[in-house]
Amino acid sequence: MTKNTKVNAAILIIGNEILSGRTQDTNTSTLATWLNSIGVKVGEVRVIPDVEKTIIDVLNLLRSEYNYVFTTGGIGPTHDDITAQSVSKAFGIKYEIHKEAYKILEAYYKTGEFNEGRQKMVWMPENANLILNPTSGAPGFSVENVFCLPGVPSILKSMLGGLKNEIVGGKPILSLTVSLKTVESEIADSLTKVQNNNQDVEIGSYPFFHAGKLGVSIVIRSEDQSKIDECSSQILKFVNEKNIEVVDR
Amino acid sequence: MTKNTKVNAAILIIGNEILSGRTQDTNTSTLATWLNSIGVKVGEVRVIPDVEKTIIDVLNLLRSEYNYVFTTGGIGPTHDDITAQSVSKAFGIKYEIHKEAYKILEAYYKTGEFNEGRQKMVWMPENANLILNPTSGAPGFSVENVFCLPGVPSILKSMLGGLKNEIVGGKPILSLTVSLKTVESEIADSLTKVQNNNQDVEIGSYPFFHAGKLGVSIVIRSEDQSKIDECSSQILKFVNEKNIEVVDR
Repeated sequence: MTKNTKVNAAILIIGNEILSGRTQDTNTSTLATWLNSIGVKVGEVRVIPDVEKTIIDVLNLLRSEYNYVFTTGGIGPTHDDITAQSVSKAFGIKYEIHKEAYKILEAYYKTGEFNEGRQKMVWMPENANLILNPTSGAPGFSVENVFCLPGVPSILKSMLGGLKNEIVGGKPILSLTVSLKTVESEIADSLTKVQNNNQDVEIGSYPFFHAGKLGVSIVIRSEDQSKIDECSSQILKFVNEKNIEVVDR
Repeated sequence: MTKNTKVNAAILIIGNEILSGRTQDTNTSTLATWLNSIGVKVGEVRVIPDVEKTIIDVLNLLRSEYNYVFTTGGIGPTHDDITAQSVSKAFGIKYEIHKEAYKILEAYYKTGEFNEGRQKMVWMPENANLILNPTSGAPGFSVENVFCLPGVPSILKSMLGGLKNEIVGGKPILSLTVSLKTVESEIADSLTKVQNNNQDVEIGSYPFFHAGKLGVSIVIRSEDQSKIDECSSQILKFVNEKNIEVVDR
């Protein structure tokens, strides 16, 4: 899990509400899908509580191990929003009013509505780069390779477009899914052989029960389409020999 | 995050399909909700790939730091299911056919259907305790404080009932949600004061937009109902003073 020629990232979900089970995280899936599409492989995800020391320690570890770190949550106006001050401490830089963010929010709110609570959202690490928020005004920010996004899924999604030019990915990771009307144990041995013959391709096997259909989705992932095609043809060969039906999924 | 008189747990989600964004994890929320209800606080969640060394390293770290570790995924019959062998290596114990699991699956399948692929699912760490699976036969297992469950959410859910007597929790963690027709910045200062006055209670603030209603849910969590009640009355006091409407959520 060290940095290499491939581009990788870690996702750090900050929030007691995920750890208590109250809130179902969906930001991991949103971020991971988007990162894969721009050639960044997600190496790990961590969910941690709203505890300053934990945020600092985990962030410092992840930012040294991965090309990019994306945090979600903890950048709102309430007492449990401590991401910005924790990031400042992790980097050992000042936590202060960000002038550009201040101007953005001053313009965003009606006169008199940019109150003390909202002003908390413009406190950031010194010289942070802003990540613009087309949905609700308050920007996220980045420091070096750490990108801090909000926890509300719809707002987070709306901010990714503005990030595309900030993230330098590798080759996009391509994938092909072959779904079969079978059970995993019927294909396990044959699939193992295909994996052994194609060790630089990632082959996953996932049982599903969907719309009354029971089956297995085989997912082939690689940066190289020709390797995916080769793998796929080896899979379809044993699928034909076993008279297994290929289905939509 | 070391062991203490309170009972804590880590959740370890094993699976490339979560890291690629293909699959939305829901097991974290299921496990966390259930663990909270039996007095076990989830301290962290990690999602890691199907890589043996990573599984071994992370598992050995988490099992020394938390009272319990729950893993999900990687116990099926295919080549990417490597949880059982990785757990064996993490504990330094033999990976072998589990006789009781063998009998269970031999009885579960029709004659001739307990094939080589399915037999892989009875390979486990020596002397592992089985976690029975009322849905699809193949058991999970535990070794010391590590409990290994499948990745398929419906199967995982069906196995939790059988685990209740294995897990010794602390006092259940109680929670109360007060939902308000307001925005976070309107209540941020008052809520900070309540949190400062009640430092051993966990107060979270979560904006929502649901069924056309925009608002904030305040979640108060503690093992002590009287502390929750005290906090709640302090919150309702400023809510009344500010003429903020309490809503259902």
